[in-house]
Amino acid sequence: MAERFDRIWLNARLATVREDLPGLGVIEDGLIAARDGRIAFAGSRSDFPSDADATERIDCAGRWITPGLVDCHTHLVFGGNRAHEFELRLQGASYEEIARAGGGIVSTVAATRASSEAELVAGALPRLDALIGEGVTTLEIKSGYGLDTETEMRQLTAARALGDARPVAIKTSFLGAHATPPEADGDKDRYIDLVCREMMPAVARAGLADAVDAFMEGIAFSGDQTARVFRAARALGLPVKLHADQLSNLGGAALAAGFSALSADHLEHTDDAGAAAMARAGTVAVLLPGAFYFIRETTKPPVELFRAHSVSMALATDCNPGSSPLTSLLLAMNMGATLFRLTVAECLTGVTREGARALGILGETGTLQAGKWCDLAIWDIERPAELVYRIGFNPLHSRVWRGQ
Amino acid sequence: MAERFDRIWLNARLATVREDLPGLGVIEDGLIAARDGRIAFAGSRSDFPSDADATERIDCAGRWITPGLVDCHTHLVFGGNRAHEFELRLQGASYEEIARAGGGIVSTVAATRASSEAELVAGALPRLDALIGEGVTTLEIKSGYGLDTETEMRQLTAARALGDARPVAIKTSFLGAHATPPEADGDKDRYIDLVCREMMPAVARAGLADAVDAFMEGIAFSGDQTARVFRAARALGLPVKLHADQLSNLGGAALAAGFSALSADHLEHTDDAGAAAMARAGTVAVLLPGAFYFIRETTKPPVELFRAHSVSMALATDCNPGSSPLTSLLLAMNMGATLFRLTVAECLTGVTREGARALGILGETGTLQAGKWCDLAIWDIERPAELVYRIGFNPLHSRVWRGQ
Ligand SMILES: [Zn+2]
Ligand SMILES: [Zn+2]
Repeated sequence: MAERFDRIWLNARLATVREDLPGLGVIEDGLIAARDGRIAFAGSRSDFPSDADATERIDCAGRWITPGLVDCHTHLVFGGNRAHEFELRLQGASYEEIARAGGGIVSTVAATRASSEAELVAGALPRLDALIGEGVTTLEIKSGYGLDTETEMRQLTAARALGDARPVAIKTSFLGAHATPPEADGDKDRYIDLVCREMMPAVARAGLADAVDAFMEGIAFSGDQTARVFRAARALGLPVKLHADQLSNLGGAALAAGFSALSADHLEHTDDAGAAAMARAGTVAVLLPGAFYFIRETTKPPVELFRAHSVSMALATDCNPGSSPLTSLLLAMNMGATLFRLTVAECLTGVTREGARALGILGETGTLQAGKWCDLAIWDIERPAELVYRIGFNPLHSRVWRGQ
Repeated sequence: MAERFDRIWLNARLATVREDLPGLGVIEDGLIAARDGRIAFAGSRSDFPSDADATERIDCAGRWITPGLVDCHTHLVFGGNRAHEFELRLQGASYEEIARAGGGIVSTVAATRASSEAELVAGALPRLDALIGEGVTTLEIKSGYGLDTETEMRQLTAARALGDARPVAIKTSFLGAHATPPEADGDKDRYIDLVCREMMPAVARAGLADAVDAFMEGIAFSGDQTARVFRAARALGLPVKLHADQLSNLGGAALAAGFSALSADHLEHTDDAGAAAMARAGTVAVLLPGAFYFIRETTKPPVELFRAHSVSMALATDCNPGSSPLTSLLLAMNMGATLFRLTVAECLTGVTREGARALGILGETGTLQAGKWCDLAIWDIERPAELVYRIGFNPLHSRVWRGQ
């Protein structure tokens, strides 16, 4: 009896990005079949049973299909924006003048605390829709602009609500250790106590976080403080990730690897030992060229070291109001290539397979393979390189999330 | 008797960018009235006759209105694309290997020569639609990928046809002196003869060019060759503009000013004398941060000199397949601010008023003032700085071209 499928996409070229195929895992004259929201077949049309039955057949007219894109590092939910601060900086305002005008992360924390869950959702939706409009089917959203239990939980609840409001999978990360709140008066250790003993357990109890993140940097938290956060996460059974080595080399990559972190992110100042440790631990390097561009960094992440050690590299927007007001993963790819000299294949696997790996969900999405969610991006392009080469152009033809 | 208008936009905040008002010329509780495609009134609602009659009234709900955007420097019409060349470069291919693989401007010339007018139009439309989708109402399109009379004319005819295919004003520039075609065997002087004696007169006779452009650079044409092109343009009554001082200082800005050029463009290496000459001649400095970004230039255009000499500064995409595959004028603004440290006001006037000035049509568009075409961009933003601050986000609510 003929096998039945819900939908079939045929006459397509597939960039499967399967690990067992070379390059982008290209299959010409490809076909994808979905059943119950999952990929039941992804391969060459000639390998597909000719008597198969499908409720719907979609002729892709030779278009390219990639996995739905994965943006594995965003701070998408926040109150206010920092456009006025940006304007003042360009007029030459000093750090003190910006602070007096209410700028800096403190302003985002204040605006986030003053926002209801509904306001946070409404504010994030246009940003989410911009990402979805470019084929994103999975994204990560961090807390970290509440810095108190109630607001951190509200941020994460808003992040979860975005996943109900739109056909997209959301993975949340608790980033209480993002900055020290004003009321802590600079006592970072006492604030980390609060993060570990009150905030994180409350977030975990409510099931609001899929992972725990921290910002390890001179202007943020030390290695010891980060390790305390990570031990607390481990005790709660939550995987960890880290904002590491962005502005200086404090050994963040190695520390993250020591905790088997899913990913270490930014990494502009990571050294050979850090890259080697990440390779051993299977920690993904998440590169964030939007922040590099926006804050005019000059030190690039050590892409050559990551290649030499076979560290997986993902790319993400880091969408946030202070250092990367970027809502285009296509542009993150162009910046990854232009600014970091990533290859086209590294960029494309970085926003699909490696993004999924960085979120610990490579078994569920990120490649075109039977068994995974049927998350697809269908593109009006002649070759995959166009997705990386063009700047400020969106060739998405259509997008499929879980087979629909 | 009450005055009649076709359409009224009210409850809007206007960034008029009028020269006689400070900053962006902001008018809170503003109103725009259109008649016969032109702005009949743009100002404070309180100054508008209360008994005025309008066929249609549009409540802008507090949104911001700017002039429709002007992209005053593009190479939008061309055959093929250079995504594969980009991919090879990232894999470390040498210049020679790229050339052997058919890359470089030669490949675009070959693809353009092989394209029919309909193919050129069809290829450019998605790029044009991307610009229009961000509120562009006027753009300039250059030839320069034909390098023979027939193909240059076909490129310009395609550019004109784009203006019929979409509600947008197109200004064309003849850029025969863009590069030396392969068949000239490197004899630049002989090719410039052809440009001046055959190509330009034919283009002018057909009414296909609104201006004449050239590329003055070590890798392109000398000052003497450029001057010959400009004298030929003058004899035909065509205004001139110049790709000047992009990769080295050959005195292009001063030469352009000497011919009262509408604009000198790129200008990374322009010196004080060049800026002073531009100021005296009223030549607009067109800054092209997309090309600066894409080819990873490190010398910025001398913005401080332009400010000191009160040279007008415009911003444009330079959309072209080789050095700026950019189809977002919003992103050009962010790059102008981030990479060149232009202020928000300089960016916004650069893509409106100064863009219009660079095309010689400031009397017709580029500001919100009675008598000009009613070309509007209506934005879902809280303050104009958001248009510059955000990266890869399009807050356009709606767009009006000639009152519609
Ligand atoms: Zn981040
Ligand atoms: Zn150009």
